[in-house]
Amino acid sequence: MSEPQAIQSPISIVLVRTQHPGNIGAAARAMRTMGLERLVLVAPEHFPHREANALAAGADAVLEQARVVETLEDALAECRWVMGCTARRRSVLTDEFAPSAAAARILDASANGAVALVFGCERTGLSNDELQHCHATVHIPSVAEFSSLNLAAAVQVLAWELRRETLARAGQAEPIVPASIDEPPATAAQMEGLFGHLAQMLDDIDFHKGREPDRVMRRLRQLLLRAQPDQREVRVLRGIFSDAQRMARLARR
Amino acid sequence: MSEPQAIQSPISIVLVRTQHPGNIGAAARAMRTMGLERLVLVAPEHFPHREANALAAGADAVLEQARVVETLEDALAECRWVMGCTARRRSVLTDEFAPSAAAARILDASANGAVALVFGCERTGLSNDELQHCHATVHIPSVAEFSSLNLAAAVQVLAWELRRETLARAGQAEPIVPASIDEPPATAAQMEGLFGHLAQMLDDIDFHKGREPDRVMRRLRQLLLRAQPDQREVRVLRGIFSDAQRMARLARR
Repeated sequence: MSEPQAIQSPISIVLVRTQHPGNIGAAARAMRTMGLERLVLVAPEHFPHREANALAAGADAVLEQARVVETLEDALAECRWVMGCTARRRSVLTDEFAPSAAAARILDASANGAVALVFGCERTGLSNDELQHCHATVHIPSVAEFSSLNLAAAVQVLAWELRRETLARAGQAEPIVPASIDEPPATAAQMEGLFGHLAQMLDDIDFHKGREPDRVMRRLRQLLLRAQPDQREVRVLRGIFSDAQRMARLARR
Repeated sequence: MSEPQAIQSPISIVLVRTQHPGNIGAAARAMRTMGLERLVLVAPEHFPHREANALAAGADAVLEQARVVETLEDALAECRWVMGCTARRRSVLTDEFAPSAAAARILDASANGAVALVFGCERTGLSNDELQHCHATVHIPSVAEFSSLNLAAAVQVLAWELRRETLARAGQAEPIVPASIDEPPATAAQMEGLFGHLAQMLDDIDFHKGREPDRVMRRLRQLLLRAQPDQREVRVLRGIFSDAQRMARLARR
């Protein structure tokens, strides 16, 4: 059986504010066994660290090539689709997938460019702010009375599901062909640019009228992430924002 | 959601000649999160051990109730069906299952009495003699060039597959939980109202600058339909359009 590895290559595992370096090593090993190689570490507490290398147990190449960045935004800048792993159900505005459906969704999304699967820190998981960057979430349904899955174990479960789905697709006579697109989806960095522009425009046209802007911005972020605009659509939206700002400037003259 | 735990209770995880006590603890934690509680240790090198408890991270009950025996035969004495986990394909006379098929087979077998899932030691896996006790084997298909799955990670993958199959049989697979909506999606009529308002606003802020508006409106319609806004989101968008129009009116005074 030939190895269907290329399919997984656009997928990054992003670990945010990891506390225990051993978990970084164990996650690297879990990734490597399942054919994932791209690791991004956002503000790890200790890295590089001998415990990370000890638990990587031969998957040192994953650690050596790991990208270390300061913020989740930096980690996601080139990504076109982002899934966050959550330890518990939350009432969020994004779709929540079970692991096998999540793997299928991630592989589908990876046909259009870089994709990230994001894990929060051991103690608290992903914060609500961090979840704002995600197009969807995945929840591993552990038992209710003991849901404390280890970070590297969660990486292992989802890396396995990605591997299983990859193998299943490689065994298909006709692999799934994603919808044809004329332009790639916007990157996370382009989306952040769009959100920043939107926030500024709302200020300029006095949309908030003294109300707190955070709530409405969260909702608009989710709405636009759901729509998954491509690069041309982002340009159109920013063109609209610019014209609205131009009117606001004229109105103030 | 009620927990379908009883189904899993006849299943034991058997770890044979485990070398690192940390792996025993991590395996206990992996088991506990997935609703498995029966752990049997065959001639562990170090147990009890503080590292086992440290990595169990609250799954201490599994360790405390673990049965420690001298031989694999002792471990399996009460079992009616035994599956062994192998790190690589071997030419044995038993059936070899992939993980999900293995989980289904284990649950089927557990209807008839105690069942064991057996893991060999870290360095060598199960010996040929030990495999002689197994009715069938399961192989986790890691990538060919790096197949070194950690012992506790292998326990985690198979415990997860058992959990997934258990939930599926209980009718609780729930592959996708759609984003929680506090309001129903907008109706087609409300969407048309939104599009009409958008078109008027684009005119008012002079977005088109003489260009044909149809093309950009088609694109914006698709974008907004893809996002599937709910009624509140439609109100927010129309509020933004109204403020942009207000600025345009002020600009023209």
